[in-house]
This record gives sequence, C-alpha cells and structure tokens, in this order.
Amino acid sequence: MRIDVLTLFPRMFEGPMGESIIGKARDKGLLDIRVSNFRDFSDNKHQTVDDYPYGGGAGMLLKVQPIFDNIEAIKQERPEVTPRVILLDPAGKKFDQHMAEEFSKEEQLVFICGHYEGYDERIRTLVTDEVSLGDYVLTGGELGAMVMIDATVRLLPDVLGNNLSAQTDSHSTGLLEHPQYTRPADFRGMKVPEVLTNGNHKLIEEWQTKESLRRTYLRRPDMLAAYELTPQMEKWLAEIKREENQ
Amino acid sequence: MRIDVLTLFPRMFEGPMGESIIGKARDKGLLDIRVSNFRDFSDNKHQTVDDYPYGGGAGMLLKVQPIFDNIEAIKQERPEVTPRVILLDPAGKKFDQHMAEEFSKEEQLVFICGHYEGYDERIRTLVTDEVSLGDYVLTGGELGAMVMIDATVRLLPDVLGNNLSAQTDSHSTGLLEHPQYTRPADFRGMKVPEVLTNGNHKLIEEWQTKESLRRTYLRRPDMLAAYELTPQMEKWLAEIKREENQ
Repeated sequence: MRIDVLTLFPRMFEGPMGESIIGKARDKGLLDIRVSNFRDFSDNKHQTVDDYPYGGGAGMLLKVQPIFDNIEAIKQERPEVTPRVILLDPAGKKFDQHMAEEFSKEEQLVFICGHYEGYDERIRTLVTDEVSLGDYVLTGGELGAMVMIDATVRLLPDVLGNNLSAQTDSHSTGLLEHPQYTRPADFRGMKVPEVLTNGNHKLIEEWQTKESLRRTYLRRPDMLAAYELTPQMEKWLAEIKREENQ
Repeated sequence: MRIDVLTLFPRMFEGPMGESIIGKARDKGLLDIRVSNFRDFSDNKHQTVDDYPYGGGAGMLLKVQPIFDNIEAIKQERPEVTPRVILLDPAGKKFDQHMAEEFSKEEQLVFICGHYEGYDERIRTLVTDEVSLGDYVLTGGELGAMVMIDATVRLLPDVLGNNLSAQTDSHSTGLLEHPQYTRPADFRGMKVPEVLTNGNHKLIEEWQTKESLRRTYLRRPDMLAAYELTPQMEKWLAEIKREENQ
C-alpha cells in the first residue's frame, strides 16, 4: 500500500511512523509512506500557505493552491491509480473500524492534514472522504492521520505476525474483551480467578464469554444491543443482570 | 501541567510532542512531559514486560509488576499530587471534548499505553480513567495518548496564541463550522460566494450562521437535535430543509 501525507509538520511523523507495527510493515516492504510539506508547493515567493478568511473571522485558513499542486504532483507519479483522498476535518464522518477496513483495501491513500482555523472550502473538491477522529478538537490533522494509518495498516495481510490478533480484538467481535490475567497468580494479594488456573477449558471458555458479556453490558450497552446473542448467552445475561443489581 | 507517559516505544513521542502547539507549550514552560519506558522497571533479569494469559488465548498480556513500579516511582516524585491515571483501552469510556476539558484542569496526568493483546486485569486497580479514542482498533495506546494530550494541552491557559480560537471551533459551539474561503476570489473557475466579498457584515453573519446550520443538518443531525435554536435559526432551518429536498 502507498500512503501519502500532506502536512506542514513532517517531523511529527518521524517517531510514530518508524516504530512498532508501522515500522515493521515498512521494513517488510508492505507499506510505502511518503510525507510531503505542502509549503514546498506554494507559488508565492514567501511560501505562504494560509491567509485571512473572506468575510472576517478568527484565525487563518489554508489556501487552496499549495494543496492542489501537491496533490497533483502525487497523482502524476502514479497516473494509473485513483487514490482515496482523506481530509481530516471535525465536520467529517466519524472514523470507525468499518472505515479502517475499507481503507485497507485501497491501493493508495492520501491524507491532507490541516492546521490553523480551517480550510478554504474549495480544497474539498479534491477530497473523496472527510473524516473526523471523534468529538474533540485537535490542533491539527497530523495525529488523526497517524491514528487512521495505524488502524488501517494493521489490517493489511501479513502485517500482524499473528493473524488471529486482528480478528479477536474488541470492536471486531462485537463484544468487549473479558478480563485477562498473566503471572504471577498472586500479586500483592491480588489473585487470578481460580477458574482460569485449573485447566478446565470448557469452564474457562464459559467464564470468558460470560465476563465479556458482563463488561459489554456494564460499559457499552449500545454494542450489546447490536449483538446477536445465542440462547446460552441470553441466559448468562439474565444472570449478570441479577448479579449486578444485587 | 505535568504529564507522564508509560510506554514501550518512547521514541514514538519524539516528533509529535516536540512540534506545533505542544512544542510551544513546552518551550513556554506551561507543560512538562516525561516519557518513561516501563521495561526499565521490570524486576525480571530479561526485562520481560509481557507473558501468556492464564486460561489460554491469542497474544500476550502486559504484566502487572513493571507498570506498578513505574507508577509508584512517578507518584513518589510528587507525593503531594494525586494524578489522574489514564489507561488507553478499547473497552473504556469514549474520549470527547468534555473529557479534554476535565483533564485540562488537573495538575498531573499519567497515561499508560498498552501494546500486545491486552493488560493483566490487576493493572486497572491503579487507574482512575479507562478511555477509548473511538470505535476502532489501534496497535497500541501511544497514538491515543498523543491525541488526548493534544486535545487537553490546547485548552490550557496561554497555550493557544489566540484564545478565541479554542472557543469558536466545532464541537465547542455545538454546530459545525460554516464553509470558509480565502484568496484568490477565483481559483481555476471556482469562485468565493459573492456575499462574503461585498463587505456587508450583517449579511455575512447571516450567511455564516445559515451555512453552519446547513452543514450540521446534513452531516450531524445528532448535534443539531441537541442544540437550542433561536426563532430566526428555526426559520433558516426550515428554508434549508426545503432547499435540500428540492
């Protein structure tokens, strides 16, 4: 997969895009990430990229020209590919796992990271997806782009060492993960539940499913409502409700 | 404000936490960020930080001991402060602007960034907040911590040069931002709406409010439902509905 990022702060990407899973995917040749500074594409001798909004208002807007020229240069490199062009914008569609899955099937993604108060509206004509990370305000689009790149790249074939891991995560199975424990069995008096240490796999699996249900019921009833329960799960859920309301 | 981050990938923070607004806040002495590698706190001679889950399952879990000892070392540095300890977890409460505002009022925040399949459940006893960035899966908690730090730090007094900017953003006013334009008035035939260029401030403000309503109506009806409209806005909204359904 090829990913291009347009930013005024290319150095922000140096640490995060070199470490961990993303770094490994690049080392394996599964991922080619290019970060460009759209200031380099400004046709103005002062290399300005922002200007005052028409009609007044606080802050500055990103100008349309440098972004247009940067995107065109990227598209000319691979004229046979139509990239997905993603604008990071608080007014965009909220990013979720389904979108990450869609992105992971593309040949090329281009992220436009804004800064300042906003974008000249005409920049949106270049864009296929306007995406927001969540209901919070960030100083720029860079961290949002990194989050989307991370969520997308880990879904590419052969990126995660253990293919199972991508599938069993929360938000992939539809239920939250059950509590998990590792050694020691007793840490400062806090003990691992006995069922997990006595080797009865049927009981362990039942405990895990029930605790998964419990956590989802307590924390994300919205996820539970969207989930199709088996008759056995219905029974456990009734038990959980009684236990939690005591 | 003091922020501590516990991570196995401290280098990921180098770029993002040095640039832009965060970097400026640190330069001004408004923010002290310390990143520690909890591997350094492992009491095991191989410095292991992960182990197999009890009861089986895919992937590895973070062990309880290194995180406990790292957090204790952080707390000992400033025994008079009770920090907010935030665990990045897909099963946590969803991060939003309200939470960023809460965090921005604390003296100290500590972020625990996980990796691998999950945490030993006993780690949660150290934690005041379990937070998720959104309904998507990331390879680790690092990017999530950076996003929360960014959203929080920009709300600290004196961090943003222009205090107005923090307030007028989307998700702060309750409506999405109206379209904005900057020079040139004509870019490759794409023109700025005339109302914005003729200097009538009353008309400009009306246009902006109406287009803000239109964008929110089209993209985030949930935000609109939660907003208290003035009688004039109700009238515009009725007009917008007619215009959009033509």
